[in-house]
Amino acid sequence: MSADITLEELQLAARNHALPLEALRHAITPVGLHYLLTHFDIPYVDEQTWRLRIDGHVEQPLTLTLADLRARPAHTEAVTLECAGNGRALTSPRAPSQPWLLEAVGTAEWTGTPLRGLLEEAGPLPEGVEVVFTGLDRGVQGGVEHDYARSLPLEHALREEVLLAWSINGQPLPPQHGFPLRLIVPGWYGMTHVKWLRSLTVVDEPFRGWQQELSYRMRDSEDDLGQPVTRMLPRSLMVPPGIPDFFSRSRLLDAGPCVLSGRAWSGLAPIEQVAVSTDGGASWHEASLEAPVSDYAWSGWTYLWNAEPGQYELLCRTTDGLGNAQPASPAWNVDGYCNNAPQRVRVVVRPGREPTLAQP
Amino acid sequence: MSADITLEELQLAARNHALPLEALRHAITPVGLHYLLTHFDIPYVDEQTWRLRIDGHVEQPLTLTLADLRARPAHTEAVTLECAGNGRALTSPRAPSQPWLLEAVGTAEWTGTPLRGLLEEAGPLPEGVEVVFTGLDRGVQGGVEHDYARSLPLEHALREEVLLAWSINGQPLPPQHGFPLRLIVPGWYGMTHVKWLRSLTVVDEPFRGWQQELSYRMRDSEDDLGQPVTRMLPRSLMVPPGIPDFFSRSRLLDAGPCVLSGRAWSGLAPIEQVAVSTDGGASWHEASLEAPVSDYAWSGWTYLWNAEPGQYELLCRTTDGLGNAQPASPAWNVDGYCNNAPQRVRVVVRPGREPTLAQP
Repeated sequence: MSADITLEELQLAARNHALPLEALRHAITPVGLHYLLTHFDIPYVDEQTWRLRIDGHVEQPLTLTLADLRARPAHTEAVTLECAGNGRALTSPRAPSQPWLLEAVGTAEWTGTPLRGLLEEAGPLPEGVEVVFTGLDRGVQGGVEHDYARSLPLEHALREEVLLAWSINGQPLPPQHGFPLRLIVPGWYGMTHVKWLRSLTVVDEPFRGWQQELSYRMRDSEDDLGQPVTRMLPRSLMVPPGIPDFFSRSRLLDAGPCVLSGRAWSGLAPIEQVAVSTDGGASWHEASLEAPVSDYAWSGWTYLWNAEPGQYELLCRTTDGLGNAQPASPAWNVDGYCNNAPQRVRVVVRPGREPTLAQP
Repeated sequence: MSADITLEELQLAARNHALPLEALRHAITPVGLHYLLTHFDIPYVDEQTWRLRIDGHVEQPLTLTLADLRARPAHTEAVTLECAGNGRALTSPRAPSQPWLLEAVGTAEWTGTPLRGLLEEAGPLPEGVEVVFTGLDRGVQGGVEHDYARSLPLEHALREEVLLAWSINGQPLPPQHGFPLRLIVPGWYGMTHVKWLRSLTVVDEPFRGWQQELSYRMRDSEDDLGQPVTRMLPRSLMVPPGIPDFFSRSRLLDAGPCVLSGRAWSGLAPIEQVAVSTDGGASWHEASLEAPVSDYAWSGWTYLWNAEPGQYELLCRTTDGLGNAQPASPAWNVDGYCNNAPQRVRVVVRPGREPTLAQP
């Protein structure tokens, strides 16, 4: 099966890490298994000299050390993060970028201080419309040299769930997750959660930086300005059952009862349903849904499958409380964003082993 | 640049994580940046029910809990680990397996108990020739279903540097690094360091498991039995200087003095020299070498380059104390092991920015 992946795409696939699908077993993803997408290089930051600057159209610009931030009210929240490009490698034609298959996701417990309190202390002036979040990571993308930067509408930046986080799963942020400080915007795709923050700037007109205006937009053609990518569309994934073949990753399973399990999430509304198909999508069965790990994190699901010998293609599909559902097939756009078409898992079920008879 | 990477290879590249090259800055690789190669699935292990069995041709078989192991004498050692398949994607024709480029390496501080003490307690019988290390990870490779298992000659297993490790960088092993216990054999390629250990078995004839007899061998042809892969060949890598282009990963650098830096290692002998070329390998300059991080870990190196505007291809190349050097080009073998040909980094140097004149 040739995907004709280029050496450039392979370089990105090597340095950007996906969640191995069996790690979906963990409600909270261990550090090192969470997905990672680094646009440029991971900056090497000295905590002693690092400062966060809050400026722009504010009454009182602030300059803060990490100790200043850690002395503020702290909140911990489990948040599911997914890359907006997840699924890109399964679209056709495929945009030349990070070639994610299905696994650019993870759920971590982030600890930080609510952004709202800091913004209120700085005091946005009446003309302020957005906050621009700028990282220490710099490079060239689309021919334009820039520091990685993204903005949020001021009213969204003031929502109570938005955090400036210094900790993941109870540990200081490791370099790859944004040490010493990153933004967390629960429900939104990963590009929003700016890492290695150096400044927050209140601006009086919409931000037009490359990562905001020219990237992360759903475009039907190269000429289309498109709509911005914001919240995560619904997606479900399953832990592939049985044991793998090393190279093909196809699965081998003993016949008998098999609990299929996985996770489902949506940035738009709580998960309401997960359906499972064991016949390539011809028929669907409702899975049992667990309570979500938090208001902003995935929900576990299980489905008891009585696996009989044969060959199968397993799928899962979720619907959220607003009726948003995964589509049957990929919805194409120029840059390959938001492909939440269902995962397909090929399984060979072999006759189960007879229980060993106890000696009389 | 097409490498015609297949979808199967991409699946492996997504789940197996490489070290982003800028992480070479860290003498000890942070968890989450160390390379990872998982043959099958990462097992989900319950510490309460897990036991290590030491059996086979021994006087006294042992069954140990993690607490039993942690109560034994502990030793911490920084060890550089590299996958034997590192460089495979840069060989031609390319073996169908994990398509590593250059970055399947990392150095961690492993804490555990010397294997020797445990083996001596179990008491190998005179006929014992090897120890077989078996993990909890199971799957199919080369058409053969098996638990991942590798052996070491008994005399090597008794060397003082061989550890059974329960900790990485001062933390309990995360699932992906072999929780709750893994083998560490300093100097050897990664396949030796069996993760998720469940048993150690002293055998009276050489182990013939799939991962030992049919894999990890340097073969000139499919019919060749080949020689086993054991210790790491010398390799050096550099932190790519300047800033990256997101997609091509080519580098942009301002003219002026630039300290090139990186790491070099060999499992055969201490590193003796690192040479740097800034002209595609036409001429070489000796780098300054730092003391190794430990007896079993990489050495840092630096080279001061006066970068003038233009286009460059940078290389580095190391030689160890036994005269083993990186070859100028890849040495081919059927399965793509041990390709330690030099890294090549393309850099565009642009005119440096004039220092801003201070206002009088």
